Parts: sequence; C-alpha cells; structure tokens
Amino acid sequence: MNNISKLKPGDSVETFYLIKRSQQGVTTQGKPYMTLFLQDRTGEIEAKLWTVSKEDMEVLKPETLIKVKGDVIDYRNKRQMKIATFRTAKEEDGLNPKDFVEKAPMDEDALYESIMDYVIKIENGSLQRIVRQLLNKYGREFLTFPAAMTNHHDFVSGLAYHVHYMLRTAEALCDIYPSLNRSLLYSAIILHDIGKVKELTGPVGTTYTVEGNLIGHIVIANDEITRVADELNIEGEEVMLLKHLILSHHGKLEYGSPKQPMIKEAEILHFIDNIDARMMMMDKHTSQTDKGTFTDRIFPLENRAFYRPEKFE
Amino acid sequence: MNNISKLKPGDSVETFYLIKRSQQGVTTQGKPYMTLFLQDRTGEIEAKLWTVSKEDMEVLKPETLIKVKGDVIDYRNKRQMKIATFRTAKEEDGLNPKDFVEKAPMDEDALYESIMDYVIKIENGSLQRIVRQLLNKYGREFLTFPAAMTNHHDFVSGLAYHVHYMLRTAEALCDIYPSLNRSLLYSAIILHDIGKVKELTGPVGTTYTVEGNLIGHIVIANDEITRVADELNIEGEEVMLLKHLILSHHGKLEYGSPKQPMIKEAEILHFIDNIDARMMMMDKHTSQTDKGTFTDRIFPLENRAFYRPEKFE
Amino acid sequence: MNNISKLKPGDSVETFYLIKRSQQGVTTQGKPYMTLFLQDRTGEIEAKLWTVSKEDMEVLKPETLIKVKGDVIDYRNKRQMKIATFRTAKEEDGLNPKDFVEKAPMDEDALYESIMDYVIKIENGSLQRIVRQLLNKYGREFLTFPAAMTNHHDFVSGLAYHVHYMLRTAEALCDIYPSLNRSLLYSAIILHDIGKVKELTGPVGTTYTVEGNLIGHIVIANDEITRVADELNIEGEEVMLLKHLILSHHGKLEYGSPKQPMIKEAEILHFIDNIDARMMMMDKHTSQTDKGTFTDRIFPLENRAFYRPEKFE
Amino acid sequence: MNNISKLKPGDSVETFYLIKRSQQGVTTQGKPYMTLFLQDRTGEIEAKLWTVSKEDMEVLKPETLIKVKGDVIDYRNKRQMKIATFRTAKEEDGLNPKDFVEKAPMDEDALYESIMDYVIKIENGSLQRIVRQLLNKYGREFLTFPAAMTNHHDFVSGLAYHVHYMLRTAEALCDIYPSLNRSLLYSAIILHDIGKVKELTGPVGTTYTVEGNLIGHIVIANDEITRVADELNIEGEEVMLLKHLILSHHGKLEYGSPKQPMIKEAEILHFIDNIDARMMMMDKHTSQTDKGTFTDRIFPLENRAFYRPEKFE
Amino acid sequence: MNNISKLKPGDSVETFYLIKRSQQGVTTQGKPYMTLFLQDRTGEIEAKLWTVSKEDMEVLKPETLIKVKGDVIDYRNKRQMKIATFRTAKEEDGLNPKDFVEKAPMDEDALYESIMDYVIKIENGSLQRIVRQLLNKYGREFLTFPAAMTNHHDFVSGLAYHVHYMLRTAEALCDIYPSLNRSLLYSAIILHDIGKVKELTGPVGTTYTVEGNLIGHIVIANDEITRVADELNIEGEEVMLLKHLILSHHGKLEYGSPKQPMIKEAEILHFIDNIDARMMMMDKHTSQTDKGTFTDRIFPLENRAFYRPEKFE
Amino acid sequence: MNNISKLKPGDSVETFYLIKRSQQGVTTQGKPYMTLFLQDRTGEIEAKLWTVSKEDMEVLKPETLIKVKGDVIDYRNKRQMKIATFRTAKEEDGLNPKDFVEKAPMDEDALYESIMDYVIKIENGSLQRIVRQLLNKYGREFLTFPAAMTNHHDFVSGLAYHVHYMLRTAEALCDIYPSLNRSLLYSAIILHDIGKVKELTGPVGTTYTVEGNLIGHIVIANDEITRVADELNIEGEEVMLLKHLILSHHGKLEYGSPKQPMIKEAEILHFIDNIDARMMMMDKHTSQTDKGTFTDRIFPLENRAFYRPEKFE
Repeated sequence: MNNISKLKPGDSVETFYLIKRSQQGVTTQGKPYMTLFLQDRTGEIEAKLWTVSKEDMEVLKPETLIKVKGDVIDYRNKRQMKIATFRTAKEEDGLNPKDFVEKAPMDEDALYESIMDYVIKIENGSLQRIVRQLLNKYGREFLTFPAAMTNHHDFVSGLAYHVHYMLRTAEALCDIYPSLNRSLLYSAIILHDIGKVKELTGPVGTTYTVEGNLIGHIVIANDEITRVADELNIEGEEVMLLKHLILSHHGKLEYGSPKQPMIKEAEILHFIDNIDARMMMMDKHTSQTDKGTFTDRIFPLENRAFYRPEKFE
Repeated sequence: MNNISKLKPGDSVETFYLIKRSQQGVTTQGKPYMTLFLQDRTGEIEAKLWTVSKEDMEVLKPETLIKVKGDVIDYRNKRQMKIATFRTAKEEDGLNPKDFVEKAPMDEDALYESIMDYVIKIENGSLQRIVRQLLNKYGREFLTFPAAMTNHHDFVSGLAYHVHYMLRTAEALCDIYPSLNRSLLYSAIILHDIGKVKELTGPVGTTYTVEGNLIGHIVIANDEITRVADELNIEGEEVMLLKHLILSHHGKLEYGSPKQPMIKEAEILHFIDNIDARMMMMDKHTSQTDKGTFTDRIFPLENRAFYRPEKFE
Repeated sequence: MNNISKLKPGDSVETFYLIKRSQQGVTTQGKPYMTLFLQDRTGEIEAKLWTVSKEDMEVLKPETLIKVKGDVIDYRNKRQMKIATFRTAKEEDGLNPKDFVEKAPMDEDALYESIMDYVIKIENGSLQRIVRQLLNKYGREFLTFPAAMTNHHDFVSGLAYHVHYMLRTAEALCDIYPSLNRSLLYSAIILHDIGKVKELTGPVGTTYTVEGNLIGHIVIANDEITRVADELNIEGEEVMLLKHLILSHHGKLEYGSPKQPMIKEAEILHFIDNIDARMMMMDKHTSQTDKGTFTDRIFPLENRAFYRPEKFE
Repeated sequence: MNNISKLKPGDSVETFYLIKRSQQGVTTQGKPYMTLFLQDRTGEIEAKLWTVSKEDMEVLKPETLIKVKGDVIDYRNKRQMKIATFRTAKEEDGLNPKDFVEKAPMDEDALYESIMDYVIKIENGSLQRIVRQLLNKYGREFLTFPAAMTNHHDFVSGLAYHVHYMLRTAEALCDIYPSLNRSLLYSAIILHDIGKVKELTGPVGTTYTVEGNLIGHIVIANDEITRVADELNIEGEEVMLLKHLILSHHGKLEYGSPKQPMIKEAEILHFIDNIDARMMMMDKHTSQTDKGTFTDRIFPLENRAFYRPEKFE
Repeated sequence: MNNISKLKPGDSVETFYLIKRSQQGVTTQGKPYMTLFLQDRTGEIEAKLWTVSKEDMEVLKPETLIKVKGDVIDYRNKRQMKIATFRTAKEEDGLNPKDFVEKAPMDEDALYESIMDYVIKIENGSLQRIVRQLLNKYGREFLTFPAAMTNHHDFVSGLAYHVHYMLRTAEALCDIYPSLNRSLLYSAIILHDIGKVKELTGPVGTTYTVEGNLIGHIVIANDEITRVADELNIEGEEVMLLKHLILSHHGKLEYGSPKQPMIKEAEILHFIDNIDARMMMMDKHTSQTDKGTFTDRIFPLENRAFYRPEKFE
Repeated sequence: MNNISKLKPGDSVETFYLIKRSQQGVTTQGKPYMTLFLQDRTGEIEAKLWTVSKEDMEVLKPETLIKVKGDVIDYRNKRQMKIATFRTAKEEDGLNPKDFVEKAPMDEDALYESIMDYVIKIENGSLQRIVRQLLNKYGREFLTFPAAMTNHHDFVSGLAYHVHYMLRTAEALCDIYPSLNRSLLYSAIILHDIGKVKELTGPVGTTYTVEGNLIGHIVIANDEITRVADELNIEGEEVMLLKHLILSHHGKLEYGSPKQPMIKEAEILHFIDNIDARMMMMDKHTSQTDKGTFTDRIFPLENRAFYRPEKFE
C-alpha cells in the first residue's frame, strides 16, 4: 500500500494524493521547480518536481488531487518524494478530496450523539440553555474544526473528539470525587475551546485568523457566553463561574489564561484538558516509533523524548 | 496640627478622625479591648482603646467620626496611638466624613473636563461613540473610584486622575512619534481600567468583588465594550483593536493579560500606564523620606528602595 | 459539642483533649507559663496556661490526655484557648489517645482490602510479586502512615487512603485510554510513596528522618525495589520501567525527580497523584469556608485562594 | 527603481551597489564561487556569483562599489540575487560609497544643533561641564556611530538620532511630572550610550571591539565620566547620581546593569530609552509589512509578531 | 564563662559587654523601656531593661561598655536577656571596646605578610605596580574592614582574611591547572573586593554607604583601577583583563556583574570566591549545631539547612 | 602532517583514518553517495564520497580503517572532505584502530596507580571497602569509559582522567580547609560518575543506553552502592552520607540531583566537579582559537564565548 505514513526511502509509488500546500522555487542553476506537500488520511510528505512547465504551475494548487509516480529518498534524514510524472484526478476516478485528510476516528454523528448525552446530564437549567444555544449557533464548526493548528487533535473533528474524551474522564472523576459539580464541569468542557471556531480558519489546512491572534479563543468564548446569556436573560452565579472556568482553563497566567483556577472544577478542567491532549500526543508519537526505542523530542511535551517499551504495552 | 501623616511618637492629640476599620480583641488577661484604624485626608494610624464598654463596641463602627484624646507611642518601630478618651462627632461639630479620606489633587469636575477634552480628539467616530457610551454608563464610578486597592492611585478619584495623566503623556508621545494612532490610544487609555468599577467595591475602603477576583477588570472591560458595540451596531477592525489594547495592557501574560501587545499602540499604552503608576509611587514614597536617605523597600517597584538626593530635586 | 474545629472566640469548654506538642516559656515579667497544642480528631488549637507549677511541667508532655476547662479568645486574628484548670485523664475515664488524632475516613481493613483488589489485577507476574513482597515487608507502616507531614493526607492512614483513590482514577483512565498498561500503572501507584515509611517518623506527629532529608522517599523506594527484585531474582524491562515511574513521579526535575516522565504511564501517574492531592486540599479548605467567600491562600496550591460558590455545590 | 528594499523574486537589475561583506565558497562539484552581501541606503541582499576568476576574488572586497547585472530569485523563502555580470565603479561614475549605507533621517548638523539646545538647558553647572567635555572629546564618533550592531538604530548617526528623540520625550515628561530633575535626566540621556564609541568599531559595518566585549559600554561610559570629573575637579552628589543613571539604564541586573534604578530619574531614563528603541523597531518592521498582516517575529521585541492594521494608521 | 555565644535560657550573668545598638520603647502600659543589643567577641544577644531613668537613656549608647547583671530567658524560641542592674565601665576596669568585637582568627600583621608573599609572585610588572599602589592607598581599610555586612566574613579584618584564603586556593589550582595565569589571578583576588572599603562604612557595625548602594563595590573597584593605571601611565591588555576579572567576579549578570566571565581566570576567580565564602558559612553554622542534627535554613546558601554528621567530621 | 584537527580548506590529504559513523544518501539527481565521519586521535571531519558502488557501501562501516586521497573544501563555513579514492587498510599496513581515537593524556596504568594512591588515604574502613569492591567490579569500564557523550572528557579514559584531577583538587582543599572529611570526599569523587559505566554504551562512539535515559547515572551509582554495602554487610551513617554525596553532586534539583547538597563535603564535591569540567572545556576551546580572538559560543558554559588573550597566558 501507498499510505503516506508507511513510506520509506527506497519505495516507489504510483497513486493519488491531495496537495496540501505548494511552493515554486528556482534551482541554483536558475531553473524553476516545485515543492508539493502531499497528504492522504495517514499523513503528509514533502515532494519535489524538478522539471515544471508553466501549465504545471497553474494546475498544482492546494486542494487538488493528483496521481503521482515517483520514488521516496532520504534527504538530510527526512523522507522526500521525487516525482517523476503526475496527472490531475478526473471525475471518472471517482475520488473525493475529503477522503484525503486526517479525521477523528469517530464520525460527526457519533460525536454529536455522545456529546448530547452529556448535555442532558447538565442539571442546572441556565447552564444547559447556554450550552444548547451555543451548540446551535456554532454546531457545524464545532463538529468539524480541529482542536489546534498543530500538536494535538490537529485533524478534522479534532475539537469535538477532544471534548468527547474529556467528558468521559470528567464523568469518571465526578463519580470518584462527588464534591465536583457535574453541571458546571460538563458545560465548561463542551464550551472551553468553542472560541477556536473563530480563532482558526476552518477544518482543513487551518491557520490563525487575525481575531484569533489579537483576541484569542479564550476571550472569544467568553464574549460568546456574555452575548448568549444576555440574549436568554440568564443571570446569576453560574454564568460567572462558567466564564471563570473558560478563562482559567489554561491553568496559568503565562499560558494565556487571564485568571488562575479559583474553584475546584476550574482546577480539574485544566487537568482533564491536559491529560487528553497529552495522551493523544504520546499515543501518536510512540505508535510511529519502534519498540525498544525513543521518539523524537516532542516540543509541546516539554521537549521530552518518549520510550516505547520492548514488550510492555 | 494633628494631621495623621505628621504624627510622631511622643505627640499628644485631641482632634477628630474617621474610623476606617475596627476590631475587637481580648488581652491575655481576658479583658476586651479595641483596635481602631483612624484616618484623615493625610493618612491613617493604628489606635488602641484598652478599656471598652459594651456601648463603646456598638458605637465604634467603620465610617464613624470620633473625637479622640490620646498619645502616640512607638510599638515595634511603628507608630501607634493609645486612646485615653473619645466621643462621637455631633451634628453641631459640622463635619463631613468625606473630608477625612484621601482624594486626588484635582476635583471631579476638573478631571471630567480634562478627559472630555481628549474624548473630542478621538477622530474615529466608532471609537468616540463607544467611549462616550461607557462614560455615560459608568461616569459616576469612573470619576470617584480609586485605580487600585493598594499601591498606586489608591484614593478617591484615583482612577480618573491616573487616566488624566496618561492622556497627557499619550498626547506628547503622539506629537513625537506621529505614526501612533491618537484615536485608538486615547480611547484605550480612557477605558483601560474601566473594569475596575466592577472589580472593586467602591471609592472608599475598597476591596475586590467576587467578580473582580474570578473574572478580573481586564475581561470585565472587554465584556462592556462587546455589549456597547453590539448595542450601537458598531463593527469593524477598530473595535477588535480597541479590545486588543485593553486585553494586552498589562504587557505580559504573567501579569494577567491574555494577549501580549501586538500593535504599536498596545505596546505604548503599556508603557504609559507603567510610567504614571511608577511616578505616583516614587513621588509618594520619596516625599515621605528625608533628603540624603533611602525609602523603605517598595514592593510593587520590584522591592527596591529609592534614594532621595541631598540637594538634587 | 467541643470539637476543636468548631471552637470560636467566646466559647467555654470543659472536655478532654490530647497534647500534641508543649512548650515552656517565661513571661516578660519572668514568670513561667506553658503553651500547649491540643488536638482531637477534628483539628488542633493553641492553648495557654499562664500559671504553672513544677509538677504541671512534668505532667504536660506530648501524647498525654488531659481534661481542660477554659475559654477561647481571639489573639491576633487567631483562636487561642486560655486554660483555667486541667487534670490528666485517669484509667476510669476509659479514653484512648488513638481516638484523638485525625484519621482517614476509611479504616485500615477496608483500605487493605481495596488495595489488594488492585494487586490481583496486576497481570504481570514479576510486578505483582515485587508489590506483594514490599507490602509484606512494610504493610503495617503502609496502612498507618500519613502521606505527608503537612499539606495533603497528613493524617493517620493518609498514605493508603491516597493510594486507594489514585487506583480508582487509574482504573477509570485505563478504561478510557486502553493503550495504558494497567500492571505498570497499578504497581507504581501502590509503591510510589512507599519510601515515606522511612522518610517520615511515624503515623502520628510525624516529621522527617535524617535519611528522609538526605536521601528522600523517591530514592528510598527505588532502593527497596532494587533489593526486592534482587532477592526474588526478578530481572527485565518491567523492573526498570517500574523504577522509572517511581523516580519520575514528581513530574519535573525541580520537584525532586531525578528523571522526567519518559513513558506514558509515568506521565499519567504524575497527573493522578496531583489530582488526588489537589482534590483533598481543595475539599478540606473550602469545607472550612463560608459559602460565597474565599479560603485563605493555600501555599501548596500555588498560593491561590479558592472560592466556595453560594449555591453551586 | 532598483532600491534593494523593494526587490522581489523575478526582478532583473542593472545598477550600482556597495559590497558589505564577501565570502568565497566551493560548490559540491569543487568549483569556486562567491557570496556577496550587497547594500544600498535602503537595505541589503545576498547575491551569488557562480563563476569567478582569481582576479574577481581580489577585486570583490568589502567597501567596494560595483555595477551588477542579475536576477532576483526565491531561495528557501528568502530573496537571493544571481549575478550575471559585474564591473567595479570608476571615478567617472561619480559615486560615493557613503551614499550606499543607511543613515539617520536627520543629518549630523541638525542632530548636533538639536542636542546642543538641550545641553544649554542643563542648569546644573557641573553636569553641563561634564557633558560638554565629553562631547568635545568624542563628538565625531558621537555624531556618526550607530546605537547598536543590529536591532534598533543600527545605521550611521543612529546613536545621536536615538539621543535626540529621547531628549524630546524627556522634555515632555518633565513638563508633565515636574518632580523630575531636568539637568540630571538630560545629561544622562546624552551620555547614556557614549561608551558605544569604544564598544563598537565604527559607523559602518560595525562590530564589537574586544574592550566592548570584556568591559562593555556601560562601564566604559562610567570610566569616561570618572576621568572627566577628575580632570575638571568636579565632585559632589551630582556626579555620583549621573554615574548611577548610566550604570542602571538597562533597568535590570540581568540586562547588564550592575545596579537597578534607585532614583526617579534613573527609572524614567530606562523607560525613555526603551520607548524610543521599540518605536524605531515597530515602525521599521510594520512599514515593511502589508496592511492587514503580521510582521515576522521580532527577536528583541520578545519575539512577537506585530500586526499592521487594515485602515488604522 | 559568660561568652555570649554560649548563653542558654536559665543562665544568670554578671559581666561586661559592649552595646552594639540600642532602642527606646514604650510598653503597652505607656512606660518607657530599652532594648540593647549586647556583644562580645563571640556573638550578640538582645537584652531588655524594663525600668529606665532619663539618665540611663543618655548613657546607654552604642559603643559603650557596661557591666550587666541579669538572666537569660526564652522568648519565642530565641534567647533574650532580662537586665536586672547595670553600670558603665570605668577606666580602672581596664577594658578596651576593641576586645568586644568579632575578629578574624589571624591578626592584621600576619594577614599583611601572607598577602604580600603573593604580591611578590605577581610576575607581570604592570599588575604588581597597580596592586601595590592600591594597597598603599587603602591598606588600613583593607586590613580591617569586613568582607560583608552580614553572611560571610562579617567581622573585623574579614576582607583580608577572605583574600588570604582565596590566594591559597588559587595557588593550589594554578599548580594543578598550569594554563592559568598566576599574575592575573592573584592580582584580581587581592583587588576583587577592594571597592568594599568605600561601599561599607567601616570595620565595626558596618552598613552600606550611599555610594555603596548607588554605585556598588564592583564599579568602585573598577574606578580605582582606572585612576591608578592612569596615574602610573600603565596601559595594555593586562589592565583590561584585570578590570574584566573584577567586573565579572559575581559570575552572573543577575548577581550584579555587568559582564559574565569571558576568560579562564575570571571563571576560576568566581569559583574560588564562592568556595571560600561557602566554607566560612557552612563551618560557622554547623559548628553551632549539635551532632546528628540540621542547622537552621541559611539564606545565602540557597536557604538550605545543613546536616552535621553524628561521628563523621 | 594530516592530523584532522589541523586540516584547512584547500588542503589535499592521502593518509589513513578511522570511520566513526557512515550514512548513505541519494543526491537530488537520484544517485547514491556516502557521508563518512572520519577520525584520528586529534579530531574528526565530515567527508563525502560522491560516486559509490554496492561494494563500497558494504565495506565502509564504522570502526573500519581506510586510506583516503582527497581535498578539503569549505561548505557553509565548515570544513568538508571530498574523497577522490580510497582503499581499506590491510594487515601489512600494521595499524591499530585504537590509535585513531582520542584518549586521555595519561595512560590507564598511570591513572589506576594515581587513583589507588587516594583509595589508600580513605581512612574510614567501610568507605574504603565499598570503593575497592566497586573498582573491582567495574574497573575495566572505569578506566576506559569517557566521562560524557559530548562536552567535557568525551574521550577514552575520560572518566578516570576526570576523577584523577578532581582528587588532586580535593586534596588541596582538604589541606586549606581542614574541617572537610577526606574519607568521604575521596570516596565520593571516585564513585560519583561510576554509574556512567551503565549509562553509556562504551569507551568509543558512546551513546546513552535505555537504562541511562530512564534511570540515569546518579541513581545507577546509588543502586550499586546499596548492593555492595548489603553484600559487605556495611551499615552506618557513612553509607548514607556517601549516597547523599552521589545523589546531590549535580548541585541543584533542576540539574537532575534528587537532593541538594546538605553537608559540606557534598557542596564542595559539586564545586570540584564543576571546576574540572570547566577547565577542560575552556582549555580545549581556547587552544583551538587564535590569540586576541574569541572562541565560538560554548553551550555547556552557559553559551559564552571565551577570549584568548594576546600575550597573557
């Protein structure tokens, strides 16, 4: 098979991929060439096309499906594909670009259903109404956006998938520590990253919006709750507490939260968020590493390398 | 004179003061006594009343004016007043509690006029309307609140006095560096601490509200701008930039700003805020210090002691 | 009732307490007096006995049960008891000092049973044998020691109670994240603080041993595993991994771990440990605080004050 | 036009530039080539000459003016010039290398006059004499040196230009905050970076001297004041205060100041220095960025990227 | 014996001490009393005189020798002396205040001789001349000043005693690592703290001068070398290197050095300084601690407590 | 001569080198090539072989001696060798790979003898027996391993050479500061890095073992002492102290020590270790630098560049 995640130097491929990004360049001899970042559901690879025509340059745009024939080589310890020939996909190939991007392992419907099961468990009426209103307003984006541009949950539906896992852990912790308030914790988990639907540009090839950079998803989420509570005429301590959980969920001021957690549920929200993000990253990197060896250093995990045990999994 | 700021161990007093706070205690011998924090416009002093009746305890509440006769002693290197006798003020004494709290050196009308002069100079219509609307909504509090609970501008009208000085520096810097946008900078200066009218409890004896602790004046101000812009149907980049200036005015994430300054005016706002707060603190402390000596260590000035030159002022 | 945790200034008491610590002093007038720290199951209080005889000084030693008659006063914002008279407990009072110290809410047998249920679930034979051997060796101490000298789980059986809760959270997380290895995680949780049985002096009135200060519970636990594995002739990757989890469970070098977590289970162990310790501290402090107010600043929780909601619990 | 700052990939040029630095290299095929860093008043560009003779290598030295014909390409996201042919400038071309380096927007005479206007305003005679003596001694270098090797004011006359702007801000602040001592502040601003005339090698292509590295401009300036005060027989508190302002002007120990600011004017000097340096960097970077986009990350501005508003300037 | 360092609660004394500092106070009952800090060669103790006359207050000044009769009590875990009666020393008592202050274990002559032995070993003529000139200029102070106000070597002749030990370690390290330059290292050791003769007020009861606070001993020493080298017409790399060693001897910018060590000898100077200061503090504190126990936390040793072994010394 | 450390761009060589590492690559044109890292006793160099056969690839393995003919070029400011032809060494060349790796300047026998001289000086019998037992167990590795993978003492016998120098400094300091315990300090120096024999893979081309990464040399050494003391039935304070010195020898928690130094000898051990490592690095780098210039920035020396004086060595 030609799954990108499996390609090794020495492999030859002849298959379809989606262009994620493309760049034009000029060799030191002055000839044009192109760098394509090709992807399928399993990953991406840098590819070089050393001979290009004007027409090629027109055609090789992001979001285009192409069939390539080429070889994988090792360039400075990284895999690189040298494209020999290519053609763009035709309608009769019967392919859909959507099938060439990474997605959460659960589909949107399953995620929606799972999350709604928890919405029902929000016993506080005001909080449930706020959550429902915001899911109505941003449901589409909420179910398709990634949770981040890079690092963890950086794939289609990553945001909802992340929320789904966090809710499961929250439920378990509320069973073990009954002093935690379920309504507050579930509401805040569902909404904690809702601001990402404005901070990021979209489900695929996402990047930061200007608003994302200057205001940030934490304050965007806070603004949305302010507006929705005003619309629904909801007042009271629970709104303030919900906002506090959103504002403090990064745990420390230096991570961009304007307030540190100052109630129990805020503290626990931060831990649940962290555990799910870290499990996702550790699983992803160790699964790509041989047994008995270490991963590369992982920047968002404090630049540590993780060991994958010989037999112990 | 009996100005509190001038009292020294050895002095005897017989004059009126305002009770700021009061506490009941019991001596190691089991007898009740009271600790009163007395104030006038110039400062405050801790006072002890070693013999108290039940009636005294009823009467000696905060915000009460009393005439005390007593002596100032040195207790562990701090001044303390030992009250011999006291009586509460009567109507015929013709005194007003307002005259016994510290105030800004300019009165509310002068501050209002000065600040409105700058409002007129906000050329961008959207920004001027937002500023006017919020000054209408919170004008009373804006003109009477302190800028902080302790440290700098911790007196009646401290907030507006701080804004007034910042505007003057902003005007000078805009003259020197014409690439700065006056509309944006003036608007943000006027509103940067407007959230304090909800973060703090009031002009006198102020402390933090629950909302102040859990949400904080930065996000409160942001919320107010969100609401007002929605009410006035104002949209556009300027609203986002104004919010960015408010959100980033503490300069660093670890100081509670959820975003660092990312436009020129945001960077300069942070500097102007800092300069005025620091000038206020340095002037206050050095004016209370002898020439040729150092002040005590001042915590919000990185715990430094400042030198007051012999002749050089 | 005379439960120490409930005493307020103004209360009079006549009941039995246990002396935790005692100090002799001399008043500024040169007369001897004694300070006693009295405790019952609910807490402790500082008490003063202003008139003492030579015989009193002999008698008032730590671990002694006395019946005191006295009054609670407010001394510098703290409760203090002024003892009028006292007598030591007699056999006919039928009291046991053990009933006057704070204990975990579960008894030793229940804790033992619960933890053994998890030992059985350690599928890896080598790890199960190491765990059993160490529980045999240090079972008594393991079931009675606190988990710390101050801060969290600082009561009789605190260590086992902490382990018990951590195991429950571990089980939930292993269900949610099946890539985690249960054998490794359960073994490490049970043994992670086993070194405390040598780091601390005992279940009651505990303090650090010299070995605790110079070597520390992390390396002590590592040494015990080294010895037991040698005794049982157990070798292999699992021993190294178990030791790695113990060594890294403080999460960061600056918290005293000689290695950072470098396998998944090590990372998760650190989080589970943290969650249980923090839940314990947050519950303890907020339960002693009025609704709608903040706790004092809690040093091990980054010196934050926590809010107890009005209605939201 | 062929201004370097405006060149884009795809442009062809045929014009004069100054060689800033040059390097010889050998291609992987073993052939010699040269890398030239070419500059004009607006900026610099890296250029490659792939075919070079021995004579070329002799001729292509720094500070040489050459006329080049070539094309601008994109190499790894940076502009690079591929030189086709070149010749050195001849006398009849009538060009002066001085016109090919970046300079302050004000000329030396205007800067000198402006700064002398402030010297006159130094009312303290001792301070004015020290300032005049040092301007006499190092006037030439003071008016032509840059203020830094990179980052801000890194151009001919950058040092005096920086001082000129700082003096204007100082004057404004002294008007607003009359407790500031003008004599002290103006003197210290003029001399604060005078040590750079020995720390750096010269106005063009500047780098650090050995003395600059081992002693540094702060202590060099202090030494010069020590010597001049001794020569002029000036003693007294003002000399000590002036030296303190120089020594503390980096604001914090970790930025290389051996003392933190401990008088008002020292604190304010640090802020004025910072504001001017930051305004210079922010203006430079945003002016090279499209509206509605962000600059690259700017290292000396805490690695932040700055936004240039769409319409708001 | 009545050596202050040996006094314990319960002891009675009748002997001569020197008043180090004295304070007047007023009891809560309004009566005057005095606090005296008494010293002899071995240490100091706080003493209270609860009944004082006007004449007593005149007489009990710092630097006065008095004979006291009193008792040592325990006050809040610290020793305190309660003075019953006292009289000032008379000429016929034949006592000298000098004998009541702590001194280095070597006398000034021995220190001078030892240090001069190393001066002779400075082979570089320029450096030797600079060192000799400065020892001539400040010899008296150099031999009597302490090396610090508190912490290490805070006794008469502490500065020279510290230098003496550092020279011995330097000699040993130059034998082991022959690439070190002896002339440079010896010169810098002798002069590294010479600025303290102006930073501190004197050999006894020392405190910081204004110049010490605003300029600091590092830059003061640098200035002195600048002046002496100018006087002696000495130029050359060695002067710059010597100044670099002085400037960088605190090792890090945040410790007040304007430059980090950038030559070998500078790095080693910092280590030698550190070793001697730390040995002095560790020896002092452990010698006052019982075997098998820990010292109090020692602030300048990163707040660590040190263990004194049972048998192992 | 063809010593690698002396090679400069432009040099031609024809001599024997040892292959340290080798990599296969493919050029952008798709042709195979090889990168060899060649070494001799003086250093290493990267070499390229642009035309390779299948047989060449088989033959060019690490630890192989080859005779190469080639040229040294400059590639991006680094030396690179372009290999023209090569042959593998034959038996008749009479060469030994051991002569092509860097070694300590003293041979193993001399190091052994020197270190045993200090073992004899360990007066405490328990400590001497522990040291002897561990030297017996790991003598071979102890005498041949490097002290580190990179940075300091990263050559054959580097570990023993480092210990040898540290012992000499320890002896000198014990002479100067007689309160230090020689038995403890010598024992700890000899064993402080003994864990490296399991942390690293071997004397040549060393890298970290899995145990090295997950457990680390500090705890490995601690384990070995635990085992040996158990075997020899040695108990007592000295074993605990020895372990404390090993555990704390990195000086700070953030450098991987689970405990900070808490006895004098532990503090001094850390300093001696640091001095020797730093002298080694400073000497190595400055010896490769021209007089009057600075070294490159040296990462383990806090990224400082060191100056090599013109005349002053």
